[in-house]
Parts: sequence; structure tokens; C-alpha cells
Amino acid sequence: MAGFLCLYNKIAEVMQMRFSKMFIPTKREIPTDVEIESHKLMIRSGMIKKSASGIYNQLPLGLKVERKIENIIKEEVEDADFREMLCSALIPSELWQESGRWARRGAEMFRLEDRTGKEFCLGPTHEEVFTDIVRQEVSSYKQLPVKLYQIQSKYRDEKKPRFGAIRTKSFTMFDAYSFDKDEESLNKSYEEMIAAFKRIFDRCGVKYSLVEAESGIEGAPSSIEFMVKSEIGEDELAICSDCTYAANRESAECMPREFEAEELGTLEEVHTPDARTIKDLEEFFGAEGNRFAKTIIYYADGKTVTVVVRGDREVNENKVKRAIGEVEEFGLATDEMVKDVTGSEVGFAGPIGINSDILLIDEEIANGKNLITGANKTGYHFKNANFGRDFEGTVGDFRNVREGDKCPKCGAPLKIRRGIEIGHIFKAGQKFSENMNAMYRSEEETDEYIHLGCYEIGTERLTATIIEQNFDADGIVWPLSVAPFEVEIIPVNLKNEDVVNTAERIYKELKLMGVDVLIDDRDARPGTKFKDSDLIGIPVRITVGRDLKEGLVEMKFRNSEERELISAVDAAEIVRDRLL
Amino acid sequence: MAGFLCLYNKIAEVMQMRFSKMFIPTKREIPTDVEIESHKLMIRSGMIKKSASGIYNQLPLGLKVERKIENIIKEEVEDADFREMLCSALIPSELWQESGRWARRGAEMFRLEDRTGKEFCLGPTHEEVFTDIVRQEVSSYKQLPVKLYQIQSKYRDEKKPRFGAIRTKSFTMFDAYSFDKDEESLNKSYEEMIAAFKRIFDRCGVKYSLVEAESGIEGAPSSIEFMVKSEIGEDELAICSDCTYAANRESAECMPREFEAEELGTLEEVHTPDARTIKDLEEFFGAEGNRFAKTIIYYADGKTVTVVVRGDREVNENKVKRAIGEVEEFGLATDEMVKDVTGSEVGFAGPIGINSDILLIDEEIANGKNLITGANKTGYHFKNANFGRDFEGTVGDFRNVREGDKCPKCGAPLKIRRGIEIGHIFKAGQKFSENMNAMYRSEEETDEYIHLGCYEIGTERLTATIIEQNFDADGIVWPLSVAPFEVEIIPVNLKNEDVVNTAERIYKELKLMGVDVLIDDRDARPGTKFKDSDLIGIPVRITVGRDLKEGLVEMKFRNSEERELISAVDAAEIVRDRLL
Repeated sequence: MAGFLCLYNKIAEVMQMRFSKMFIPTKREIPTDVEIESHKLMIRSGMIKKSASGIYNQLPLGLKVERKIENIIKEEVEDADFREMLCSALIPSELWQESGRWARRGAEMFRLEDRTGKEFCLGPTHEEVFTDIVRQEVSSYKQLPVKLYQIQSKYRDEKKPRFGAIRTKSFTMFDAYSFDKDEESLNKSYEEMIAAFKRIFDRCGVKYSLVEAESGIEGAPSSIEFMVKSEIGEDELAICSDCTYAANRESAECMPREFEAEELGTLEEVHTPDARTIKDLEEFFGAEGNRFAKTIIYYADGKTVTVVVRGDREVNENKVKRAIGEVEEFGLATDEMVKDVTGSEVGFAGPIGINSDILLIDEEIANGKNLITGANKTGYHFKNANFGRDFEGTVGDFRNVREGDKCPKCGAPLKIRRGIEIGHIFKAGQKFSENMNAMYRSEEETDEYIHLGCYEIGTERLTATIIEQNFDADGIVWPLSVAPFEVEIIPVNLKNEDVVNTAERIYKELKLMGVDVLIDDRDARPGTKFKDSDLIGIPVRITVGRDLKEGLVEMKFRNSEERELISAVDAAEIVRDRLL
Repeated sequence: MAGFLCLYNKIAEVMQMRFSKMFIPTKREIPTDVEIESHKLMIRSGMIKKSASGIYNQLPLGLKVERKIENIIKEEVEDADFREMLCSALIPSELWQESGRWARRGAEMFRLEDRTGKEFCLGPTHEEVFTDIVRQEVSSYKQLPVKLYQIQSKYRDEKKPRFGAIRTKSFTMFDAYSFDKDEESLNKSYEEMIAAFKRIFDRCGVKYSLVEAESGIEGAPSSIEFMVKSEIGEDELAICSDCTYAANRESAECMPREFEAEELGTLEEVHTPDARTIKDLEEFFGAEGNRFAKTIIYYADGKTVTVVVRGDREVNENKVKRAIGEVEEFGLATDEMVKDVTGSEVGFAGPIGINSDILLIDEEIANGKNLITGANKTGYHFKNANFGRDFEGTVGDFRNVREGDKCPKCGAPLKIRRGIEIGHIFKAGQKFSENMNAMYRSEEETDEYIHLGCYEIGTERLTATIIEQNFDADGIVWPLSVAPFEVEIIPVNLKNEDVVNTAERIYKELKLMGVDVLIDDRDARPGTKFKDSDLIGIPVRITVGRDLKEGLVEMKFRNSEERELISAVDAAEIVRDRLL
């Protein structure tokens, strides 16, 4: 019979899982130009092979892990009613021009022309292509939601490819897109996909945190990153030491620090000729950073934006940008601009009497008492400056969180950790459909823009992070769910016919049971086989050797030092039952 | 339990095969700018969607067919001991420079630079990448053969993309590479893969011919094309009307035509002032084309090459090139060159006394008697020219075959037909390993070049040719093996609870049996469902409708007009048994 099961049964049946025929080029030597463990181990175990900086080919063992991860993803997202399709990686520039991203995407996008001069990019992501398909095929609310995904090669011209599969120019990505008629329906798709992503990462055996994130320059209204803590991560995370709160530092919040109750002092101008930095001022005034109102001036599309935070804080520019709305140009003001706004030399800015288009006051400043701040007059500062009495401004959260700040949800201390993003989901909302005119006819006979949700997992990066969390001195220690094989059988001596026959019998029995089993049938020394076995990290190892005289074989789990002698006759069944 | 079977069982189980959730955007209208049936039907059945000229995205239904074909390929080539891996489509130019193909490949290759100015191509094929990997990992004869494959997106900047999935800029290709220690071993890999390809195409239900082919500019010593006869094919094939002989016209052979026995006449110079073409001469001499020795002059890397074929034949330039060995420049001689070689005006060339570096005589000319040919003297021809007596030269097969020529194997008439290439396998031999220095240490302790075999199938093109061979006025008629679904269930009236419940029960039963089943659960008119069902061409249709009152449902096969009423209770089992 044809059909699903039979198709796959046939693959399982014909697939030779013999080391001698698998092309697993393991290596003893540790590669030199390699910085992290997963990269070393993926090279040493023969999973990947480099073609150029940031460009890797997946060898059979690496691809087997990739396929296991892909299958877990497919199962979970099919369950959430997403359907698989496959787009070309070549995307015509018109679609990106329509969305407005052709100009905004920088050097990270590979661009090329065909022989007629028509421009294309190599897709780093596919919002435009999917939106284009859906706008052509969907006209009525009755056809929504549409939920689609693909698993495909993506391309990004990374400035500095590094860390092996973590940051590459060419990689495999699962990307999914939900098209909903309204926000409520989008929220449902979004929540269902958060649950699906959790199941995917749980099944892959990776430890991760859900992190509230700013999305990139596309500025989506709401997004969640799935992050793995790692020293090599590019993102900084604020993670609560007690509750589940976690956020990208770019958008993380914390409770404002409290001030001791204190009488308001009289505003007083102080001559401070040589003190311009907070450090100088701390010495001069004999006070700590938290007593200062630090004043930073930015420009934004021709306007000046002044931000006031406590002296021991940094301004979070992201929060500032969110507060002032979308701008094209944003940056620190030049010295000239500072002089214009303050009417003084650089180093004496303060909120009192400043001539700025926009004045943003961090809530810790608004709550503060008797602060020290610049007087907008060269060589002078104020003492006892107080919000409300001495200056006004728009109050909000404009500060970066720091290690030890209080969690905004529960008040426990926050930790700052580096992390790697393995998954990202965000609500693009109506942004793409407005730009690309993707509309549907509603039940009320009006034309409405479709709501888009986007969902991404970098599969090779996920593989690398799983290894980062699962290795020891001898090699990889795969979780069962994503191991390239579940069981490895090692016949110790190929010259002993009993050993070979028993190993082959157990191998065939396990295959018939549907277990993913490798037999190391190479004519190699036992030491080589054991070293390779530890290196490639198959969860269960069955050694057929000297104990066979007593009718026994050895079973050992990769994540434990214990060895167990089991009946050679029943070995397959025993192993299968232990895998359940 | 984890493992192969269970992974796939889970996918089969969770996959919702409901029309309402599948995104199958079928169309009634026939697309206008479309030339062939498969293209029309792939668009109308919602299998593919165009992004730009020659760039298509595979929608869920199209991808399901693609995956079925891929699985058939995987099963058969795994069985032939090939292992799957996956290369990046971005290939650094260095590898192509090493092989010598960077300069030789023309505008058909997409080229691009990264931000550092490093050059890449989008791989149209991967001989270099695989050879590069193997030369790094293989050092001894003990590690050979190595057999690897991938199924991957390939890119070719087609000058004139057309015919839908037949000729595109971005397409999916199965490409496999065998690395063997010697010719004998390569021949074994090659023969095994011919057998695997036959099984693949047979299982896909496509009718094809094995065709001896010249390979392209890479000039491999031996190759076989798998061709499907088609009016839109780009290649011309010579196919025997009786035996299995088939060859690309570029290299096809035929038996030489015979001449009647005849006394040799005396060589005689004739004044033919106004007759230069064969047609002029036929009139002038009152003789047919087959009595003339047509003489064509070429240049090849600075040398002149004169080829003599019968007047009713065309020169096969490919055969000429093979005879004179590898040259860089080759083409028809200029008038100046012709005058130099013949010592006369153009139009009077002949083999007698010609001053050419190389003189090639087609065997029909060598067998001929009393031929008419140019005298290398302006305004004159010879009568009764005879090979051996009046002129000499290198004898061989330098002619194109024509419809009706005799098969070189059995003598039956050859037919000339157009065809589409769906598979190609060729022996590259030591060409790439010599250029790229891919060597191994032999058993005799010598360093030897590795022998390469290459194997390719264009999967989307294969899908299109299957449709070209399997459709009727109403839509596609899929062979069971590659149908996107095996069975479709149509509940005619969703308001009738019995109808819905029965349809759902049969659907679930079939799914549990591992049958790939679609249920058209849309709230649509029965006519729409039946039309779509015929269009997308599922092999078996079960209609649950009015006969349910008698406990019956209708079973109909897409490739027949017969309808059969079967028991609703046993429907799943009956259908499953019929699929066996």
C-alpha cells in the first residue's frame, strides 16, 4: 500500500545505518580557529563542513539532526493548523519596494541582478512573498485565517560571521505567517504559536526563556523572543531571579528606585568650574550618582530631544524612540546643538530653563528629591532641583535596567545575562498589508487590511545551542529526541563471528521496531569506535564483546557512567523498552 | 517511543487534511499567458504561484507532490547506498575557478558579491563543492566509494524562462555524486544508479526513454539522459521504431545508406558557372542529393577542418568536434579561409586536391560511387569522384541522422522526436579531481585521482511532465504514487448530520490506516466540490450523499467514468484494499 506510513516505513527499511557507509568524517584534533564548543563539536563529529566564511554544508550526520528538529517543528505547527509550502529564495525587488523595506534594509541583504538587469534579493525573510500570495488569493473574510509556513535556506550577508552555526551567511529557517481578519483573531494565532514554540523547544531538550523583545527596525507592536542564556549571545537579557519575567534589555523595565522621604531644599546655583562629568560632580558635591539628574540631548528629524535620568543610570534610546514616535534620523546632538539648547558650553545641561523641543523626564527623576543638575550656564550647577517645582516635562520610563534592579512584576532582583535568540514571534499587524494593499471584504461588506503574525526558528542555530547545553569532555550528549541516532551498536571484534552475528541481529531487530539505530561496522580498533561513539553522542550504546560468552552485551547511556550487562537475546526489546 | 516510524506517524496523525484548512486556491478561468497543459493545470489546481518570470512558489498542494517524488527518490538512492547531505546554494568563486568552470559558464550563472567584494555563484550544480569536501576528508582507497546526494534549490539565469515548471530560474534538483577509486568501480556506481533512476521514474508513473547523450561543454566521456517525448522539448531525439535504441540527435548514429553496385566512371571536370548550391547542382546534373559529396570547411583553433558528407545530409558538428579533440574556438570558416583552402571562390570546394589541415570523410562518402563534388576551381565541378582512387581522408561518422534512417542496432527506421530531459547521469571521470587535485592513496601506495559520477533529477520538471502525460479535459489524473492525496471524501450536504458524520468517520478510519486522505469539508455547492476534485485529480473519490439512506456511498476512480456504490460501513476497508 502507498500512503504516509508505508512511504516512510520504506525509507526506514532501506536506509543503511552503517558507519562504514554513512560518511561521518570524525576528527580527533581540535580545530584551531574555532571559539565555542558547539562549533568544535559539530566539526569534530563530522556534522558540518565549511565552504567559506559563514558558509557551511551539512554532512549526513548534521542533516539527520536537522531533519529531526524539522519534524518536531512540523508536527507541532501542523497541529496548530499551519500548512507547509516552499517559496523561492530569489525575491524580486518590487515586492520589497512595495513594503518599503528595499531601501531600509542595509548591507545585510544579498542583492543581485539577472541577465536583464532586474533586481532580486536572496530572501532573509519572506513577509512580502507570503503577503503577495495571500492578497492575490484571499478576497473574503470567509477564507481567513490562512496559516502557512516553510522550512528553507535563508541568506544574510553577516558583517562578522562567527561561532559556527550560530551566525552564518546561509542558514535554514522555519518561517511561518498567519493572516487574520482582526486583532482578536491575530491574538489567537499568536498565542497558539507561543504554545507550539514552547512544545517544540521542550521536545528538543533545550533550556530557554521567553523574552519580551523590541522587534527590529520593522517596529512591530508586540513580540516574544525565545532566548537561550549564553556567554556568546549578542543580546542582553534582564531575567527575574524569582518570577518568570524576562525581557530583552532594549525594552526591559524595572521598578523605579525609591528615594528616602526628605524636605525639599532651596534651589541653589553652585559654581563648578572644573566639574562636567558625573564623576567630577560626585567628588565636588560629595554625593553619589543617584543624587544627580543627568541630562542627555539628542536630535530627531531636526528636533532636539532632552532626556533626564538619574546619574547612575543610562538612557535607553529605544524607549526614547518609542516615546517620540517614528523618526528617520536619530542620534546624540552635536556640540553645536547642545550649545544652542543650553546656551552654555557642553557639560552644564539640565532640565531647568533648557530650550529643547522635547523634554523627557525619567520617572525616577520625577520621584526624586533635591537633585543636582546642570544650570545651562557655563561653570554652574543647581543643588536641590525638584520636578514639579523647578522643572516640568513628559514623565516616563527612559532608563536602562541594571543587574539588581527590581523586577517590574514581582520586585525580586533582576539578573542581566547574555543570550542567543533561537525563536522569534511577532505581530506585524496591518503594517505589511497597508503598504502592500492586502485587503479582504468583511462580513459587514467593508474592505479591511489583513493582520499578519510572523514566526521564526533558526534550525541550525537551535542545533548549536542544544549542543552548547549538552556536551562533556568526550563529545556531544544528545537529547534522545534530536539525536542523529537513538542507539549505536558496537561489535568490538569483527573477526569473531558470534560478535558480528549478534550485533547484526540486534541491529536488524531494532530497525524493525522502528528504532533509529547505527551499527559501527568499521574495521577499526575498539578504542576508535568508543571515542567516536562518545564524540557523536548517541544516547544508548550497546557493546557486543567479551561478555557474549555469557550471553550478555553491555548497555550504556551516554549521559551516565553506569554500564549494565543485559541478555544478548533480549537486547533489542530491553533497549526499546528503555527508550519509551 | 521516538524513532523513525513514530516521528512520521505523529505527522500523519496531526496533519489536518481538510480542504477548508489546506490553502488550495483553485481557479476556473484558464490563465492566458500560459502555453502548455501542465502549466495551466498547476496554476488552476493551486499547486504553484508565480513571483516573477521563471520564479514560482510551491503552494501546499504542489509541495505535497514534490515531497512524494522526493521520498521515492530518497528510497531508491538510499537503497543504492547514497547518503543525504545539504550544501549551501552560495558557492565561493574559488572552487569554480579551480575546476575551470568559473570563466566557462556564461550568463546562465547567477553571480553576486558579498559586502567584502568576495565573489559567489548561486549553485546551478555542485560538483565542485562535493569534490572539495571529499578531497579534504578522503585520503585512502579504504574510504572509497563515497556516495552522496542532496535535494536542494538550484539557480539558473534562464534567458527565456517558459512552460511553467519546465524551464525556470529557481528550481529543486536532486543531485548525487559518486566518488570511486577506479573506472571499474565508477562503472558499477553508474550502472546501479541507472537502475535506481529507472525504478524512480517507473514508480512516478512517467513514460520515458533512456537516451545516449553528449554531455554539455564539460565533455564527460559517457552519459545517459532520461527523456520524456514532448512537442515542447528542447532536445531532438532519434528513437528506434522497433528496438530500445534512443539517442540525442547530437550524438545519434545510423547505418550508412547503401549505394547500388556500379562501375567506377572516369573523373571528369565539368564547367558549372552558375551552380553553387546542392539544389543548383541537382538541376544542372539531373541527379539527386545523394550523388553529391558536399564539402564544408570549418576552423578550429587556427586550423582548417574540411568535412565531406552526402549532399542530402547535414554535418554533425558535435561528431566533428569529438573527432578532432578538445578545441577552444570552433566554427564555420570565413569566406577568406575558404578561398585560401580551395584556391577558388566560395561554392566550389571538394575533397580532391583541397589544401586543408584536416580532411574528414563521412563513411557514406567513402562507400559512395561516382560522386559529384566541387573541383576547388571557380566555376567547375568533378563528376565520378571516388574515395580511395581520387581522394583520401579520415573516414568516420560525421553526419546527422534523419527521420527514416536505419537504427544502428537493428536497422529499423528511426523516428526524430522532441523531448524533455527529466534525469541525467554522466561519468565526469577524473576531470574534476585532476583540476581540483582530489587524490587518494591506493592499495599499491600510489596517489591516484578520484573518479566522479554525477546524477541529476529536476523534481518540479518531473512533476510537470507527469501532468503532461496524465490529464483530461477536467483536470489532472494523478498516478497513485505521486498524487497529493490518495483518496478524497466529499460530503455532499453539510446540513445533513448523517452525511457529515459518515464522511468524518470514513476520513478518520482511512487516516488511521495510513491512507493519505483529503476531506472536502468546505461549505460549498456540490458542483464546486466535484469540479475541484476532478481538477486536482485525486485518484479515488468517495461521495457521501443521497445513497446513504440505503447505507451506501459512491466510489469513483479519477481515471475512469464508472461509479460504484459500496457499503458506507465498510467503505474505508474497501478503499484501502483497492489501493493495495
